[in-house]
Amino acid sequence: MSVKKLTLKKIFTQEPVGEIVLAQGWIRSVRNSKEFSFVVINDGTTQNNLQVIVNNNLENYEDISKLLTGACVGITGKLVASQGKGQSVELHAEKAVIYGGVPEDYPLQKKGTTLEFLRDIPHLRPRTNTFGAVFRIRHQLAQATHRFFSGEGYYYLNSPLITANDGEGAGEMFNVTTLNISKPDLLPKTKEGKTDFAKDFFGAPVNLTVTGQLEGEAFAMALGGIYTFGPTFRAENSNTPRHLSEFWMVEPEVAFFDLEDTADLATRYLKHMIGEVLNNCRDDLEFLQKFYKKDLIETLEHVHQAEFKRITYTEAIDILQKAKEAGEQFQFPCDWGSDLQTEHERFLTEKHFNLPVIVTDYPKSFKAFYMKQNADGKTVRAMDILVPGVGEIIGGSQREDDYQKLISAMKEKNIPEEGLEWYLNLRRFGSAPHSGFGLGFERAVMYMTGMTNIRDVIPFPRTPNNCK
Amino acid sequence: MSVKKLTLKKIFTQEPVGEIVLAQGWIRSVRNSKEFSFVVINDGTTQNNLQVIVNNNLENYEDISKLLTGACVGITGKLVASQGKGQSVELHAEKAVIYGGVPEDYPLQKKGTTLEFLRDIPHLRPRTNTFGAVFRIRHQLAQATHRFFSGEGYYYLNSPLITANDGEGAGEMFNVTTLNISKPDLLPKTKEGKTDFAKDFFGAPVNLTVTGQLEGEAFAMALGGIYTFGPTFRAENSNTPRHLSEFWMVEPEVAFFDLEDTADLATRYLKHMIGEVLNNCRDDLEFLQKFYKKDLIETLEHVHQAEFKRITYTEAIDILQKAKEAGEQFQFPCDWGSDLQTEHERFLTEKHFNLPVIVTDYPKSFKAFYMKQNADGKTVRAMDILVPGVGEIIGGSQREDDYQKLISAMKEKNIPEEGLEWYLNLRRFGSAPHSGFGLGFERAVMYMTGMTNIRDVIPFPRTPNNCK
Repeated sequence: MSVKKLTLKKIFTQEPVGEIVLAQGWIRSVRNSKEFSFVVINDGTTQNNLQVIVNNNLENYEDISKLLTGACVGITGKLVASQGKGQSVELHAEKAVIYGGVPEDYPLQKKGTTLEFLRDIPHLRPRTNTFGAVFRIRHQLAQATHRFFSGEGYYYLNSPLITANDGEGAGEMFNVTTLNISKPDLLPKTKEGKTDFAKDFFGAPVNLTVTGQLEGEAFAMALGGIYTFGPTFRAENSNTPRHLSEFWMVEPEVAFFDLEDTADLATRYLKHMIGEVLNNCRDDLEFLQKFYKKDLIETLEHVHQAEFKRITYTEAIDILQKAKEAGEQFQFPCDWGSDLQTEHERFLTEKHFNLPVIVTDYPKSFKAFYMKQNADGKTVRAMDILVPGVGEIIGGSQREDDYQKLISAMKEKNIPEEGLEWYLNLRRFGSAPHSGFGLGFERAVMYMTGMTNIRDVIPFPRTPNNCK
Repeated sequence: MSVKKLTLKKIFTQEPVGEIVLAQGWIRSVRNSKEFSFVVINDGTTQNNLQVIVNNNLENYEDISKLLTGACVGITGKLVASQGKGQSVELHAEKAVIYGGVPEDYPLQKKGTTLEFLRDIPHLRPRTNTFGAVFRIRHQLAQATHRFFSGEGYYYLNSPLITANDGEGAGEMFNVTTLNISKPDLLPKTKEGKTDFAKDFFGAPVNLTVTGQLEGEAFAMALGGIYTFGPTFRAENSNTPRHLSEFWMVEPEVAFFDLEDTADLATRYLKHMIGEVLNNCRDDLEFLQKFYKKDLIETLEHVHQAEFKRITYTEAIDILQKAKEAGEQFQFPCDWGSDLQTEHERFLTEKHFNLPVIVTDYPKSFKAFYMKQNADGKTVRAMDILVPGVGEIIGGSQREDDYQKLISAMKEKNIPEEGLEWYLNLRRFGSAPHSGFGLGFERAVMYMTGMTNIRDVIPFPRTPNNCK
């Protein structure tokens, strides 16, 4: 009988009972009885472990029975229907190969460890149930993202990482250089004593991008609809559970879309992601629900079905004012003209509506220069999508497509035209209405997994003083 | 009758003849006759243009008839079967909206322009037929990549961009810093007069990654199989048509795979990509074939069907030596122990076999420290895949999974253990056989599009002295 080499995911999906199977993975536990060892293995392809029964007549039984959690083995044997609870099939070992043992200092012993401890060993933590679940769900969300936007007819755009733009004033940036910055005395200098960037790799000072939106607009004006899905960077010194210095953004941009079209698109996208995770990651969701967020699946199912509520910023302020009059306590002001704070956003989406809420038409004073100006002279065609449990998850806008209005907005906000001529020219060369939004991918992963620290949803988190 | 807003791609796919359609796009040409204007538009979703017939009784006929190439319009009208050659349907305008005109200095006039000229306007060049085709094919290859590896059961890994590793000595790296490097005098200094990186954002000197492989290995040892698909960086001063400073790599890494498994995987991946492009990008391939590479489709079909030839490096040297004796001229030596040069690779894949060739088991002297050592003490389990017309497109290896052997290889190559302890520990903590490869995504796009300069297959190319 030929041996089928199968991952655990395939073993549990196909359940080839009666066949000879080679299963390979890492030991989760070994329990020895008189005649048998019960060896539980996992190979990371699924949340489910495979129980292996090793008879003491196996040649290397003694070695196997002494293996510790974390050791790597390959076991050939017959797959049989399981008598035990919680597993459909088990493997009766006929041959066992030990690929690698573990020394006593292996950091992942069976006893529980804290998420904080695991953050120090990002190369090992994906071996745990928690991080296995998180990264498999992250994978599912990434696949869902590509499938969704590709299905909508949009083209995947790899916007540049190294850029001479300084974004939209969106945040502090990292400098990129090949000059030997470890020796200040030897840096090439101009007559004024400043660093001579003409001698740097790109012949000019450059940074890591904070957004792919501007390039996205250029490509939307060419290919119709595009989306980026790539890393972006913020050099902000914020050590919070919601901020990373390096994170992944999804930024669709679509020609001939107004703000309503974009709100529709964002709604469909969020629902598509939730649907894919609910359909394909049930075991992982159940694990995370059990240990991290008691209502995880229920919340996702609710949002998946819900009709997203749409209100204007002005209506939102109205609701907040009335709530305040009725005794609701807010730390920050909620007068017309002040930005919505997390407490306001969460009040709206969790308490007032208990629904995802799309807030549109914010005052231009605190929104970016490129947003389309409304006829009222005060507001712009911006939108934020708020979801229960997280708050803001998406921000977007219709873009100003009128050259003169865009120039005026930049003047009002003291944004120099220099360096942005190419962007402005998109409004001179066959300008078109267009809109887009940005989703912080890790925020979405947090939402779908119930994890509360953003460091726990990206493989190798980069934060101030931390680049492991 | 309700109006259907459709992209050109959907119009040509669905051909809803007789229906009222809103088509939006940019003007490619306007030809005026006595009673009509023939307006040709394209919206970037497809290579095919839509011909619009505008009758002179249309309200704003005069404005329409004067529009220049590049102007943006939205035209509502009845879609009818076309009498003309080369198009299946055309639009009879009933209403035309002008979204944006173009001034005389619009750089993309109808007359042909050079690829070099277009490199100076990366924000506009995707509006041309050539770059529309290239970036749609690039999109298709990216989708094919995700579908393929996800279908194989591997998880998408976002490996970090900012890293304190210095790679594998794979190449020069970019420094990343938030220190104000424009003012050398004000940089924080240690007692020795060097820059004090303890004061930098991450508290240490950091770089942009040259590969995600090492992190990929950590995750393969946890999730079974992973693949990266993200940007990587080389700060090398090479101004060639085949090098970029910022490019995208695809790097799968699979636990329990040996080199043969990996060669199989790479073969299936390449064929999957080619198949997807042949099936889904016919119009774009035909355009590129007409203007850039006369045998593009034929070559792709050949490689799609071909059985990839597998030989060892030692066999390759044999073939090259015999060819040399038979009069073949090589510029570089091809004795055992010398690395294969492009001329050798192309001889093997184009002249000798006229097939894709997988060369394995190279001398360890010029291969990376982490490759699995063969029992002969001289070679390692490396592979390169060579394809006709391009040469090397994939490089991979089985990784050394023996801790002591890996340590020895690092000593031989003078690679310090410091900073790589975590990587070495993957061989102490449940080590397993594992293998992987890397594909330079832009090289693959060049191959599939027939473009000969790598700057023409990435949206915003970054090369020495160029960061537009």
